Amino acid sequence: MPPPLHVTFRAGSTGIWEIDGICNVVGDTLPNASRLEIIETATLLHSDDSDWVLRGVTSNPRYTSRQELDRLAANQEGLGRPLATRAALIPIRKSAAWWALAQDERRAILEEQSHHIAIGLEYLPAVSRRLHHSRELGEQFDFLTWFEYPPEYASSFETMVSRLRDTAEWRYVDREVDIRLSR
Amino acid sequence: MPPPLHVTFRAGSTGIWEIDGICNVVGDTLPNASRLEIIETATLLHSDDSDWVLRGVTSNPRYTSRQELDRLAANQEGLGRPLATRAALIPIRKSAAWWALAQDERRAILEEQSHHIAIGLEYLPAVSRRLHHSRELGEQFDFLTWFEYPPEYASSFETMVSRLRDTAEWRYVDREVDIRLSR
Repeated sequence: MPPPLHVTFRAGSTGIWEIDGICNVVGDTLPNASRLEIIETATLLHSDDSDWVLRGVTSNPRYTSRQELDRLAANQEGLGRPLATRAALIPIRKSAAWWALAQDERRAILEEQSHHIAIGLEYLPAVSRRLHHSRELGEQFDFLTWFEYPPEYASSFETMVSRLRDTAEWRYVDREVDIRLSR
Repeated sequence: MPPPLHVTFRAGSTGIWEIDGICNVVGDTLPNASRLEIIETATLLHSDDSDWVLRGVTSNPRYTSRQELDRLAANQEGLGRPLATRAALIPIRKSAAWWALAQDERRAILEEQSHHIAIGLEYLPAVSRRLHHSRELGEQFDFLTWFEYPPEYASSFETMVSRLRDTAEWRYVDREVDIRLSR
């Protein structure tokens, strides 16, 4: 388990990732931009050049059991694979009702009812991902998930995202933006 | 569930809380200081006047079940009671081994083995507390817990702290400082 890593997603005119499209799934969208830069430091870089900036921090898994963690570790790939030239950045915010739930209630909705972890496991190792927490940083979203996959898995990725949005857990999502990228 | 609140604990020559003593329980201590100021904002205040500054953010409970949360809510008091003139700030850091555990393993150690939540419940409503998360803020500790209690509960409070330090969970604490205060 690596220590928390601070990650800044800066949209503007620089960065190796080209933004192909930005859609609002629920609630307000984000402004259009041409490229995305991902900066892995503790410091937020300010720049006149940026259209928007989202910040998050990696952390320990909050719901995953030992059995699930072992299955994930055995199957998942890291970021930066040369063939994974498609990406998605999906910022979400969950409702006050979600945050008022106890740990056992959130776990039951996330996994026993919605199979969030199990669904993600089905798309390994093609889709790699990293979750960033933003809620405690005073950001506009609660989570930023970054996904990378090879172009031939694009339709599988759409299916995965659709299945997740169709779950009981997603009824607690009150803002979601879907940013697609390629390099 | 209130939204995350950023809290800065600033030790120096100002603040309503007088620091009675600072002890290192495990690992390095913190420098002595005379008073503590608690600043509830999103912004860290820089000051030449401060001996040290610890920052944390409140968040949703990470382990507490619905049944436990309801029992806590029914019994606990808020901060700032006029009779609660004694306080403790106990910053702790947990080991890499703790952070490598899965959610179900951490919950089992914290509650089923160590009865952390159940022990805390025994000392309600006399002792009120607020937990602040620091790990994802790049701080030197993982958690800052702030306790307030009336002077006549001082020995009960010592017993509570001793019982917690004697648990299986505390074997994962690799740094702990105990700061006692009064006003």
